[in-house]
Amino acid sequence: MNLRLVARITAALVLIIAAFMLIPAMMALAGENSRTIIAFLAPVAFMAASAILVLVGTRNLKVRELTPRDGYLLVSVSWLAAAAFGALPFYLSGSMSTYTDAFFETMSGFTTTGASILTRIELLPKSLLFWRSLTHWLGGMGIVVLTVAVLPLLGIGGLQLIRAEAPGPSVDRLTPRITETAKILWYLYMAFTLLEIVLLLFGGMNLFDATTHTFGTLATGGFSPKNTSIGYYHSLYINGVITVFMLIAGMNFALHFKLLTGPRKSVFRDSELKAYLLIFFVATIIITLDLFKGGLFQTLSETVSHAAFQSASILTTTGYSTTDFEKWPFLSQTVLVFLMFIGGCSGSTGGGIKVIRIVTLFKQGFKEMKQLVHPRAVLTLKLSGRSVKNSIVFAISGFFFLYVFLVLIVTLLVASAEHDILTSLTTALATVGNIGPGLGLVGPAENYGFYPDWIKWVLSFAMMIGRLEIYTVMVLFTPVFWKR
Amino acid sequence: MNLRLVARITAALVLIIAAFMLIPAMMALAGENSRTIIAFLAPVAFMAASAILVLVGTRNLKVRELTPRDGYLLVSVSWLAAAAFGALPFYLSGSMSTYTDAFFETMSGFTTTGASILTRIELLPKSLLFWRSLTHWLGGMGIVVLTVAVLPLLGIGGLQLIRAEAPGPSVDRLTPRITETAKILWYLYMAFTLLEIVLLLFGGMNLFDATTHTFGTLATGGFSPKNTSIGYYHSLYINGVITVFMLIAGMNFALHFKLLTGPRKSVFRDSELKAYLLIFFVATIIITLDLFKGGLFQTLSETVSHAAFQSASILTTTGYSTTDFEKWPFLSQTVLVFLMFIGGCSGSTGGGIKVIRIVTLFKQGFKEMKQLVHPRAVLTLKLSGRSVKNSIVFAISGFFFLYVFLVLIVTLLVASAEHDILTSLTTALATVGNIGPGLGLVGPAENYGFYPDWIKWVLSFAMMIGRLEIYTVMVLFTPVFWKR
Repeated sequence: MNLRLVARITAALVLIIAAFMLIPAMMALAGENSRTIIAFLAPVAFMAASAILVLVGTRNLKVRELTPRDGYLLVSVSWLAAAAFGALPFYLSGSMSTYTDAFFETMSGFTTTGASILTRIELLPKSLLFWRSLTHWLGGMGIVVLTVAVLPLLGIGGLQLIRAEAPGPSVDRLTPRITETAKILWYLYMAFTLLEIVLLLFGGMNLFDATTHTFGTLATGGFSPKNTSIGYYHSLYINGVITVFMLIAGMNFALHFKLLTGPRKSVFRDSELKAYLLIFFVATIIITLDLFKGGLFQTLSETVSHAAFQSASILTTTGYSTTDFEKWPFLSQTVLVFLMFIGGCSGSTGGGIKVIRIVTLFKQGFKEMKQLVHPRAVLTLKLSGRSVKNSIVFAISGFFFLYVFLVLIVTLLVASAEHDILTSLTTALATVGNIGPGLGLVGPAENYGFYPDWIKWVLSFAMMIGRLEIYTVMVLFTPVFWKR
Repeated sequence: MNLRLVARITAALVLIIAAFMLIPAMMALAGENSRTIIAFLAPVAFMAASAILVLVGTRNLKVRELTPRDGYLLVSVSWLAAAAFGALPFYLSGSMSTYTDAFFETMSGFTTTGASILTRIELLPKSLLFWRSLTHWLGGMGIVVLTVAVLPLLGIGGLQLIRAEAPGPSVDRLTPRITETAKILWYLYMAFTLLEIVLLLFGGMNLFDATTHTFGTLATGGFSPKNTSIGYYHSLYINGVITVFMLIAGMNFALHFKLLTGPRKSVFRDSELKAYLLIFFVATIIITLDLFKGGLFQTLSETVSHAAFQSASILTTTGYSTTDFEKWPFLSQTVLVFLMFIGGCSGSTGGGIKVIRIVTLFKQGFKEMKQLVHPRAVLTLKLSGRSVKNSIVFAISGFFFLYVFLVLIVTLLVASAEHDILTSLTTALATVGNIGPGLGLVGPAENYGFYPDWIKWVLSFAMMIGRLEIYTVMVLFTPVFWKR
């Protein structure tokens, strides 16, 4: 284990986060009270100083290669550091009364979960609301891409890291050089960000709202500076724009790249993308019919708008809402709970189990059925026209089971504090799957503030494990990881 | 496909069911009204006549070997026939107002589910209550074992059938000859039946109650002739006896056999048995603590008794209750919902996913974790000290996913008729897993009578698919099954 190297890279990340913290610090300086200003400047100074100390102290490192083990440790440590330091402005400003709350909110931000402990969001100073949404944007794609882009600058091959972030089916290498890849993904992310901001401005949002909501959309996060989330605007245009961008954010970014540069054919042959869109359309249709039957909205276009928005929001694990879907008929609610299990595509900013894993297991289930009829046939499982190795199917099976097991454990812990089954289960699904809102006491019109502190820590941890694809964090708790 | 052979064996099974129907017919003759008597005798005559016709018509069959395909078809057809004919006494006697209700109740009986549409059970004539419990006993082990024992008498090797009934890890062959195996299992089942009846008589039950409750226990069925199930007796002794026998019924019967004849060592090394008992004890301890904290029962022994009973009842998928566990604290309820997912051991009369599959997936999940730390190591998955083939892990992964998918579909269908999520989900778990009671509208103090007819048909089908280990029935719906 190369602990000094892990410390060095973490320090570099902390420095970057401190730099981004300067943006809300400026906003605070432009017209907020001195406590808020100090709440930003003090952490920035502290983070920069300690990061520079570590960087100087480790400047003569000889080995600059990360082993897979270092990679796993680094990923977990850097997410913990981001949340721990990022929480300081919320705590020091007094906007959140305990450090537990601040840590929960920040972990929720960096993991792009969007679960909030705030009851009256709009009372917060704008600088803090901006920082809150910025953690989404940085977390969503930022930290992954930055890590990949920064590591080579430090003289380190980061390919292991990409594997650590996405132990699903192997990532298609976009270009041979990892730095190039990171830069391209970063540009794409920036381009989508600017485009959505402009489109939302057209819809009548002010720049602050358009920017923060864009951060929440592209990171599939879900933090909104409004108490009633997107429902605040009562605009089918805004619903539509955000629906489309949530769907974009939930797609594999490698496909966006291919769509721009070609070969485009492979994009339309992609099994995961096809399944993702199919799930979205089927869910939207079922919910539309259910809502229309129930007469919840006056026009069909309004019904479709809300159904599509909520399906996209939950499937991509964003968690925005246009209305309190807890008041929808049970069939619609059940469909949403199932979408909570699925999640976005691999290589997206979405959380959850991921569509590619669901597709693989589905095909595996049907392959076994064929095998029963033809016991001696040699059958292969194909995705996007290519056959899938057994070892990948094994990894996915293991992942699926561990995911279900983790949801189970979190559900039990929440239920042990006397919360009802639906609340406990959807709390687990919404945090492990990085969604945000659940049902019951954590429904779209509620928040996580009422949970006792120890549950907030459990959930913060659950968000992190879920965001880092479970294995990445769980291996740290196996004795075999620490041997020798 | 050898359809005539399938018809012939089904006819033999119908004849056997008709013979067993003579027992409640006698009870009716001994003192019930003429309508009830006719409700038994007419179906017996009809079943016997049509079965004999088919047997005579197919007596000159040349090929008497079942292919796997024939096996799958036979299993599904024979369960359908058992439920379709077995439902007649309920319907003809007027005890159940629609054939849908009678079919649901009988399918619930033969699949050892124990879900009932009856609101006031005790109003039924004793003969019908006895027949209701007898369907459990026949279904639980009877039909499996009988099929295996009868097939060789008809000159057919039945090994494929055993595979069809249990496509999990391969069944340990107890003795080389299948008929011998069937006989031994049958004797064991009989011995346990007699033993439990005697022990329940000691507890103060009358012979009728002792017999019907024993049928429900050993089949892990759950039908009780009492409205309040085992809670009627308010006896810790009776709770204890039934808890032990539910646990016995949920174990692999091959292990019971080995325990009698040796080698006993392998019994105590059995991974599934160890996990099964561990799950039972952990659930009992959590529920005991939770109930004790909530002060639901006056003494500790009473608390343990109810906790152990309910854990065993749900884990083994029996479904008996000593109290309305829907009024228990949420943690206990959540634990019970999770036990609903697991089920009994392979080779038992229990339903659900089965402990062996859960254990295998668990080990697979942890194996993958080790693999991440040591990417080049060759790791094997071991159960009961023996390494497990990849193909078996694949089959189990496929099964687990299809099981979850089936639960999902049934949940959606139930929710589409505007039932709440907890009711819909536990209805799906309780029928696919052959448990019986769920929570919400189908809680232990409720029944399935209120569901519209189409949902009763869906659930009847769900019970059958679940009981026949999903694949057995699902293959019939694949185009590849019917090719050529």
